Amino acid sequence: MVTSRSAATARSQRASLRRRGPVLERAILEAALEQLSTVGWNGLTMEGVAFGAQTGKAAVYRRWPSKEDLVADALQAGLPTLGEAPDLGSVREDLYELCRRVRAAMYSKPGSALRSVIHECDGEIAERLHGLIVTGVIEPSTRLFREVVQRGIGRGDVRPDATGELLFDVVPALMMYRSKMCASEWTDSEIAAMIDQIMVPLLRPGRG
Amino acid sequence: MVTSRSAATARSQRASLRRRGPVLERAILEAALEQLSTVGWNGLTMEGVAFGAQTGKAAVYRRWPSKEDLVADALQAGLPTLGEAPDLGSVREDLYELCRRVRAAMYSKPGSALRSVIHECDGEIAERLHGLIVTGVIEPSTRLFREVVQRGIGRGDVRPDATGELLFDVVPALMMYRSKMCASEWTDSEIAAMIDQIMVPLLRPGRG
Repeated sequence: MVTSRSAATARSQRASLRRRGPVLERAILEAALEQLSTVGWNGLTMEGVAFGAQTGKAAVYRRWPSKEDLVADALQAGLPTLGEAPDLGSVREDLYELCRRVRAAMYSKPGSALRSVIHECDGEIAERLHGLIVTGVIEPSTRLFREVVQRGIGRGDVRPDATGELLFDVVPALMMYRSKMCASEWTDSEIAAMIDQIMVPLLRPGRG
Repeated sequence: MVTSRSAATARSQRASLRRRGPVLERAILEAALEQLSTVGWNGLTMEGVAFGAQTGKAAVYRRWPSKEDLVADALQAGLPTLGEAPDLGSVREDLYELCRRVRAAMYSKPGSALRSVIHECDGEIAERLHGLIVTGVIEPSTRLFREVVQRGIGRGDVRPDATGELLFDVVPALMMYRSKMCASEWTDSEIAAMIDQIMVPLLRPGRG
């Protein structure tokens, strides 16, 4: 039932939602991330995004001709960042801090959105978004793990030949695998176990 | 255009497809795996499976009331197996052989079907199929990696404290991660690099 009071409220809300270009765009991109992180890539619709952003479908289509275009821009705008490499005095502490940041990024709204895209997208679309994932997620995280490991080599708590490319995938791979296969949420103690069982033995200086 | 010749062929094909219970069931389960590995979980329909098995939709629904039931049985029946733990004289050779078997299983038809379920399923369904994945895939593969590592401890080419649970996830996690994120197909030389860069340093006996 629409009372005159609620009609007035609706009018005033509509007025307050008459947003200018960049503000409306940000609202649409936010709504796209929200949809991705709740209903996933397959569940996301342009209608749903328009509804979430409290705008019309035409306003969405005017800017983004397809779901793929919209999702690419939404991820690009919202990608979580990991900051600068930590420097806490030991490779163990640095890795622990870095893993906590990876966890925070994974379970943030853009991180959940990204994971739904990674998991659900089929080949062709994945290809299209793949460049974004590589330059926006994989490369920055690899860079930080590499920096932490290289500082450890300089400090002496990492073996000097710990330079192989695959080394920097171990933490992201385990975090993705156990979150998917074991529904792990990566508590602090699970992160500590990963570092102590895997990363410290893998990196420590050899015999002699 | 249906000629009398092709009508006769169709009749004879239909006759040859009048299959008995277990034979028809196997054809339906096969068709379900085929659908999963080509169009994925989201693309699979009961109609598509019936068509693939050259039977009617009713024959499928009579046995499996839902897509989830059908997929659970299809995966259960077709899960790739890894055989007994290899025993080739060194942990490096054993891991190499085991990884090649994991790769063969991953890229087999049931393996592709399974990966599509793991990646595409949403929370609730994933929960339902999760027990199957744990008992049919994760546990058997963990058991073999553990056996290979324990034999290495006995032999002396693995450190005695290499017993943490997470150790046995490293290979499956890396294989899944790089197949998903880097479209790696795990050539023999990539498998060798993983073993030499990650597993051998991670497992080798400590200093002194």
